[in-house]
Amino acid sequence: MIYFRSDYSQGAHPKVLEALNATNPEHTDGYGIDPHCEHAAAIIREMTGLPDCGVHFMTGGTSCNVTVIAAALRPYESVIAARTAHIYVHETGAVEGTGHRVTAVPGVNGKLTAELIREAYREGEDEHTAMPRMVYLSQPTETGTLYSRMEMQSIATLCRELGLLLYVDGARLGSALCSAENDLSLQELAGLCDAFYIGGTKNGALFGEALVIRNQELNDHFRWMIKHQGGMLAKGRLLGVQFEALLAPYPGRTDAQSIEAGAEMLCPDRVGINEYRCLYFDIAQHENRLADRLRKGLREAGFRFYCETSTNQVFPLLPAALVEELEKDFFFHRWAPEQDGLIPIRLVTGWGTTEEEVDAFLGRVQT
Amino acid sequence: MIYFRSDYSQGAHPKVLEALNATNPEHTDGYGIDPHCEHAAAIIREMTGLPDCGVHFMTGGTSCNVTVIAAALRPYESVIAARTAHIYVHETGAVEGTGHRVTAVPGVNGKLTAELIREAYREGEDEHTAMPRMVYLSQPTETGTLYSRMEMQSIATLCRELGLLLYVDGARLGSALCSAENDLSLQELAGLCDAFYIGGTKNGALFGEALVIRNQELNDHFRWMIKHQGGMLAKGRLLGVQFEALLAPYPGRTDAQSIEAGAEMLCPDRVGINEYRCLYFDIAQHENRLADRLRKGLREAGFRFYCETSTNQVFPLLPAALVEELEKDFFFHRWAPEQDGLIPIRLVTGWGTTEEEVDAFLGRVQT
Amino acid sequence: MIYFRSDYSQGAHPKVLEALNATNPEHTDGYGIDPHCEHAAAIIREMTGLPDCGVHFMTGGTSCNVTVIAAALRPYESVIAARTAHIYVHETGAVEGTGHRVTAVPGVNGKLTAELIREAYREGEDEHTAMPRMVYLSQPTETGTLYSRMEMQSIATLCRELGLLLYVDGARLGSALCSAENDLSLQELAGLCDAFYIGGTKNGALFGEALVIRNQELNDHFRWMIKHQGGMLAKGRLLGVQFEALLAPYPGRTDAQSIEAGAEMLCPDRVGINEYRCLYFDIAQHENRLADRLRKGLREAGFRFYCETSTNQVFPLLPAALVEELEKDFFFHRWAPEQDGLIPIRLVTGWGTTEEEVDAFLGRVQT
Amino acid sequence: MIYFRSDYSQGAHPKVLEALNATNPEHTDGYGIDPHCEHAAAIIREMTGLPDCGVHFMTGGTSCNVTVIAAALRPYESVIAARTAHIYVHETGAVEGTGHRVTAVPGVNGKLTAELIREAYREGEDEHTAMPRMVYLSQPTETGTLYSRMEMQSIATLCRELGLLLYVDGARLGSALCSAENDLSLQELAGLCDAFYIGGTKNGALFGEALVIRNQELNDHFRWMIKHQGGMLAKGRLLGVQFEALLAPYPGRTDAQSIEAGAEMLCPDRVGINEYRCLYFDIAQHENRLADRLRKGLREAGFRFYCETSTNQVFPLLPAALVEELEKDFFFHRWAPEQDGLIPIRLVTGWGTTEEEVDAFLGRVQT
Repeated sequence: MIYFRSDYSQGAHPKVLEALNATNPEHTDGYGIDPHCEHAAAIIREMTGLPDCGVHFMTGGTSCNVTVIAAALRPYESVIAARTAHIYVHETGAVEGTGHRVTAVPGVNGKLTAELIREAYREGEDEHTAMPRMVYLSQPTETGTLYSRMEMQSIATLCRELGLLLYVDGARLGSALCSAENDLSLQELAGLCDAFYIGGTKNGALFGEALVIRNQELNDHFRWMIKHQGGMLAKGRLLGVQFEALLAPYPGRTDAQSIEAGAEMLCPDRVGINEYRCLYFDIAQHENRLADRLRKGLREAGFRFYCETSTNQVFPLLPAALVEELEKDFFFHRWAPEQDGLIPIRLVTGWGTTEEEVDAFLGRVQT
Repeated sequence: MIYFRSDYSQGAHPKVLEALNATNPEHTDGYGIDPHCEHAAAIIREMTGLPDCGVHFMTGGTSCNVTVIAAALRPYESVIAARTAHIYVHETGAVEGTGHRVTAVPGVNGKLTAELIREAYREGEDEHTAMPRMVYLSQPTETGTLYSRMEMQSIATLCRELGLLLYVDGARLGSALCSAENDLSLQELAGLCDAFYIGGTKNGALFGEALVIRNQELNDHFRWMIKHQGGMLAKGRLLGVQFEALLAPYPGRTDAQSIEAGAEMLCPDRVGINEYRCLYFDIAQHENRLADRLRKGLREAGFRFYCETSTNQVFPLLPAALVEELEKDFFFHRWAPEQDGLIPIRLVTGWGTTEEEVDAFLGRVQT
Repeated sequence: MIYFRSDYSQGAHPKVLEALNATNPEHTDGYGIDPHCEHAAAIIREMTGLPDCGVHFMTGGTSCNVTVIAAALRPYESVIAARTAHIYVHETGAVEGTGHRVTAVPGVNGKLTAELIREAYREGEDEHTAMPRMVYLSQPTETGTLYSRMEMQSIATLCRELGLLLYVDGARLGSALCSAENDLSLQELAGLCDAFYIGGTKNGALFGEALVIRNQELNDHFRWMIKHQGGMLAKGRLLGVQFEALLAPYPGRTDAQSIEAGAEMLCPDRVGINEYRCLYFDIAQHENRLADRLRKGLREAGFRFYCETSTNQVFPLLPAALVEELEKDFFFHRWAPEQDGLIPIRLVTGWGTTEEEVDAFLGRVQT
Repeated sequence: MIYFRSDYSQGAHPKVLEALNATNPEHTDGYGIDPHCEHAAAIIREMTGLPDCGVHFMTGGTSCNVTVIAAALRPYESVIAARTAHIYVHETGAVEGTGHRVTAVPGVNGKLTAELIREAYREGEDEHTAMPRMVYLSQPTETGTLYSRMEMQSIATLCRELGLLLYVDGARLGSALCSAENDLSLQELAGLCDAFYIGGTKNGALFGEALVIRNQELNDHFRWMIKHQGGMLAKGRLLGVQFEALLAPYPGRTDAQSIEAGAEMLCPDRVGINEYRCLYFDIAQHENRLADRLRKGLREAGFRFYCETSTNQVFPLLPAALVEELEKDFFFHRWAPEQDGLIPIRLVTGWGTTEEEVDAFLGRVQT
């Protein structure tokens, strides 16, 4: 069985695991107060160009989203999100569990727009209505699409105008930053939003996400919030070790060396400073490259797509019979119900996906 | 610097890490639906003598406690706990965060008694008062003491009489089961309470706790609760792999082989079935043996203890000047303020604590 | 200034106030445990044909809705409601405040349908999604429309099939029951849903709603829930006294006497038993009769309606200039933004609205 | 049956009811936006010497307490209260229902002290502990005792030092202000705390409490909080009308006229400005005067008291047999279990309690 089910079906990238093995005997204090977490946070402050931001290492995406939202909102406030947003669709009402409405609006290609946000904001009329106070969006979105620099800027501008906080879920941020279509660098993103996270779980970590909080007021007592939400890891340094391994810049390596053979330099300025190379981007580029290979092969085989993506998720529309046939040897997700004989499926590439696996899949759809 | 700060200052026991390394390349489905989690759950059902219990692998203790309590209680119901209970003292109000009172009562040696529970229960008079519905206790307690079989039985009997659920926090359950003073087997404990957890983090795991739910009603839709509370791990099999490594019985090994040189057979029937040997108990015995060595050495050096324990936590009362001196080379916790010139400190042994480290400490206090 | 702003702009119907005055010196026990509440509950059990139902007198609609929903749902469960539902639009996120999602679906004429509910239910796929567990609807709806007996039956049947609870907000239930278009009696409604409330505030009471819970499991410890939600009135008998005055049947009165001059017998079987006459229905008929007069006059003056209603809310589409002119002497709500030069306004009649006031309004629009 | 059960066993003081009757036909806008609420708020701003404070009329004490606390605290913060505090003992966990711990500390005569608060504050060590952020106390306390000016000042000073908010539950504030022992005027109290409420329910209102918020940050968007907590009354002016009747100063009346025959001038400066006379204080003085008569009679009959009070609650210790005998004709609360043959009972006087009722009671205990 070959897995295109998700980018979290294997363990950690070998180099991340290596770091965990190497540091395993060390004694450190717990709960994220240790040299590894401090070092990883320093790297992130450098990469993002935010020397004063708060950095918190979280065990997972839902925990991260919920803690940020619960920390940011007063009881009567709500968060605006696309109808397809992870917090609305796949978190079992965890945000509402902290007392806040997710105001879900139909998006465009999985994305919010400034106009949609303005409209949702207007629902907050007076003391009889929940008051929108935050915008949640995902980069890339849950359906693999990207916000352009211009789109993100226009949303950020509106947020400032309306007094809304902007929070970006970066579960697959690596894949977004390294996408051929991306024109929004990490530093630009970091400068536009109040908080965002750099997803580890889906980009080579065993587990863990790095939350970056630029807004000082939101960052206040955030460690209390993490613990209060049950999300503080005893052996917190595990997260620091992994993000050190993922994000530490390759010293003295040239572009050509840092990137696996065959990878083009898709976004020359992913971070916002020149020539930043690290394992995190290598993994993202690997995921994107194999997703591109899938897309290209499927397109050449004549298939269309449920939505157009340039990240590590691919959504081809395949005939129902073919889907059933493929399911014998490949593990993937049916994304939506059959329509007109076609089923949209989701194929995801991960750090361990191989060209052979991709070609095996393409071989089967081309017959 | 030598650490007696906690039993979570290092990574995982090498054999646990080995299992994570060995299974790292495998592809599995996420969120705890995988062969490793299933296997580990099967082992636990066997060990506990509860073939139908729910088993859920959680990322940490607070998350585990909060999810169980929130799943069990209706909005107006509360949980009774000792004043020193982890959920009252060290979880930043996480239980209250789900809407429930922790009714904290002064315990005896960190323990609840049937009488104290009955008294707290009486506070639930009518519709104007929060209604106690669950008893939370820790085995061993937060101060290292143990409930005897008789004490636990009398609490369990009272709980049944009053319609209270009984939940046991087993963050250090291994150390309790392997303590020389323990007379309550795993199977007996499992049969007396509605739910409990087998702590991994403090007993050799990288992270993770195995929650066992005997009460079928409490187990209903529990996976929804985990996700709702933000505690579901994407790469859920990491937890299954670790508990497989920790709990799988050593096949064909004799008692003498399974236990490290020097360890006596403290509790011949820890599980409730004869001759159960596994890494989890080896680690616990190791921790206890070194804690015993500390206790013995400190006693011989003439020191008294803040509370008498037989598990992997030791609470000697040391002169303030000595404490300050020790702090130069040893990392530990001051447990309570100085009184009469003495400071109670907490020393904890972990899977990686060595005889040399213990002797180094004893060497310094004996001078 | 003449008020068509709401049906709660005056105090209580004089007969309700009379009852409060008459009983004022009495001493009773507090919190709804008194002969008046018991008597009013007995009347309601008789009227609804539910001899075993729970009856709870609540101070207001939001408090009532929130308490029922919080009592009924487990933490990960949600309530399905129309996009225009009061709990979604006008309760400041109070339901979410108790931890539950309101799954809002676009309705048809302010109404849910069995089909819409089935669709929303499907969103509850597995442990990663909030699980719909209750359907909330209003009779009449927030835009004055009515569920027919057939519509309500088909929803109730679906709810039973899917294991969903059915809860009906009856803030203006009197107006619904007495509407010329209504074919669903009180007893039928009571038999179809798990809980509903008979609204007092908008039907002549000073304040208060009578919650009726047929589902015994939902009723369990409900008084604890009321207090827990902060909704228990110290002088609880005030609510009992009012509902006694509103609902006690007129003994020996004939149809003609019970209804004010000019009122037709719109629904001969409002309750489900013959010839039930009480102040509550008199007030509702009064409200409906004057709303009919408004509708008729506006229609004759050539105006169309934003939505067609047969209850005490009227939504004419008036030219913007006329609206501005009317606002000088009449107080009403602009319901939605101007479109094509027309503004939909909301006119509501109350227990104290007079023919003169209606005619004054009609006189101004006919010029 | 004669009631000493509570001060809310009858309806409203006749003059309050008169005001409700007189204003009943008026049309006003809803939800507390009306001339009566505005007028009553203006009176309160004048009385309290806080021209800029927020004034909100709430339906009941629990609702008021919960809304203030939920508005003031961030998720991980807790409120310190005496073990006997209403929010801890008699609100069914409503505060915890909003996610916050009530840190209950054993008080002294039902009162907190600066020292006790400082000790409880210390529990908030770091991110692993709930953080105390507010102090809740009741004036008078639940057992009828009073904070002196000096006690209140010392608490307020400590709160400022520690960054704690101070909130005072004034359910029986009238009785406190008019007590012979009281030396803390309304204006002084108002100036010392962040928020407090002037209780109406137990001082002659039909229902309702007037919340006064001096702290502007706490007052921000408070109406959203009220609605979010389900506590906003549709016919909000009912509360304004009652507090107008209760608090409006008697114009041109002399001291002797304003107070019923027999009442001494206990506290010449209850408000903080000279010669303030209003119905609210008349009622409070009436309640206190009859409570004094009870106390005096009981003392003369040789009985001791469970706690010494000077407000409208009296707690005599009576022989068990006498209590049973009295219960045939008098309705009161047994406050605590029998001890040494004596039962502490609670006697409460209300606006409608008469000298005859008091003397009837005294007549029975003296035999």
